[in-house]
Amino acid sequence: MTSSDPDCKPPLLEPVLAVVGVGLIGGSFAAAARASGAARQILGTGRDRASLQRALELGLIDKAVTLPQALEEADMVMLATPVGAAASLLETIQPLLGANTVLTDAGSTKLELVHAARRVLGSKLPQFVPGHPIAGAERAGPEAADAGLFLQRHVVLTPTPETDTGALARVQNLWTRCGARVMSMPADRHDRILASVSHVPHGLAAAYMWQVATAADADERLALAGSGFRDFTRIAAGSPEVWRDIFLANRQAVLQEFDEVRRALDHFEQLLHDADASTIEDFLERAALARRLWAGRAQQP
Amino acid sequence: MTSSDPDCKPPLLEPVLAVVGVGLIGGSFAAAARASGAARQILGTGRDRASLQRALELGLIDKAVTLPQALEEADMVMLATPVGAAASLLETIQPLLGANTVLTDAGSTKLELVHAARRVLGSKLPQFVPGHPIAGAERAGPEAADAGLFLQRHVVLTPTPETDTGALARVQNLWTRCGARVMSMPADRHDRILASVSHVPHGLAAAYMWQVATAADADERLALAGSGFRDFTRIAAGSPEVWRDIFLANRQAVLQEFDEVRRALDHFEQLLHDADASTIEDFLERAALARRLWAGRAQQP
Repeated sequence: MTSSDPDCKPPLLEPVLAVVGVGLIGGSFAAAARASGAARQILGTGRDRASLQRALELGLIDKAVTLPQALEEADMVMLATPVGAAASLLETIQPLLGANTVLTDAGSTKLELVHAARRVLGSKLPQFVPGHPIAGAERAGPEAADAGLFLQRHVVLTPTPETDTGALARVQNLWTRCGARVMSMPADRHDRILASVSHVPHGLAAAYMWQVATAADADERLALAGSGFRDFTRIAAGSPEVWRDIFLANRQAVLQEFDEVRRALDHFEQLLHDADASTIEDFLERAALARRLWAGRAQQP
Repeated sequence: MTSSDPDCKPPLLEPVLAVVGVGLIGGSFAAAARASGAARQILGTGRDRASLQRALELGLIDKAVTLPQALEEADMVMLATPVGAAASLLETIQPLLGANTVLTDAGSTKLELVHAARRVLGSKLPQFVPGHPIAGAERAGPEAADAGLFLQRHVVLTPTPETDTGALARVQNLWTRCGARVMSMPADRHDRILASVSHVPHGLAAAYMWQVATAADADERLALAGSGFRDFTRIAAGSPEVWRDIFLANRQAVLQEFDEVRRALDHFEQLLHDADASTIEDFLERAALARRLWAGRAQQP
């Protein structure tokens, strides 16, 4: 990501970067920004003292500060908290956000936060660039932080009509330097798409896991669960707190997508009722081909 | 698995072993039986000439033969075809099955095959030991065969009341030598459990993948699908032919389990409708804890 030639340093983009919430995403963003030479100093803040201490020890951040200090010193502030917490921080941030400071975030849903920003930030709304890096890992916390987490990953920015083009460009540039592929779309479109490809799978995996675990013969079932079960349910192990916020923030789009998935399931169950061999095979083949095509395109089978 | 001391060879269990269908499961069984020293000669047969040729080249089998030849020469015959094909082979097998030959299989559903065996095998029913190794891989065909595929994996045998105890012991011994953990249960119980932990996840993943792939904005959705989507849908890429047979053979149990999963999903959707934060978190936590516990127990996170 960085050149090893000391005479050819990549330009500094944001002299001081502050990260609010130094877990997997915030910690990885800090690590990637540092590794790319995009920031000179990285401040960390957040409600979890132990995580901040750990982030310091791991060298992810240079200094643990309060949110007001972060806002005073930083050129760019990244909110990397769970979705629910980000919205509630905006009221603290509003009076302290300097005119040249850019505020961005990494939340998994965007529309609710954009509405909150419009309500709370007032004249400073143009300085806010909502964003969502489509990257994650099974592990959480600063220990899981990885400077390469965003390499070749999509980052979706959802600017409002008011968003300052200079602020947008600064956030785009920083993510690009972290190795990400940046795109923009309206917040509501982002939320509908993510409901489909992220939130609904999580809800299905969780409801399925809940059903198996609450069955009278759960132990016997789980003893015979194999590698298909393992992969299908992996996401159900994700943080209940993080996912509660995502489901609450995006529940309209999620419920709408659940309806669509139920219709597909109705169709498949009808084929089973009818014991319609060739149509069952066609249905499964359509799904299999789509999955294989996606894996080939995404280069991540 | 085998001792390297030539003076301490593990005993030969089945001098001649025949495998019908030399794909992933049949090929791996052949490889494991050979590696463990349980068989001296391994015959292969099946409808796919190219696979047989490939299995010969890979050294999985010693000789490609016809099904009648296999039945004449082998001490044990393993049916490792898709579930639908196994039942239709029984009529050919019945008149040719020698009195000391043991017939077993590796199909993913058991009740329908047991019914077919009862109808077709007549006085030779005691020689048939139905079985199901709970092991698989993303890849298929003889190239994917792996002598270690069954190591520490469960193999469920579903003997009938008529099954000969000697035949049962021979199949148990061979699987144990292949590194598997062998257990027995009635065929209907096996099918209900596998409907829950294997067939329903496949159906959900396929129906979900079908729904995303047939959406008007499928390309945009798939471009933003990440690692959660990848794992959740992996099984949907499985062989449509193999899974068609599984769903047809076990459709009653699968439809019943789908009903249970729908009830769990109804419950979760109701919580979203009510925007009931703490109950949503409880639900997700129950699922997450169950998944983490399972991963810890299964030692395969």
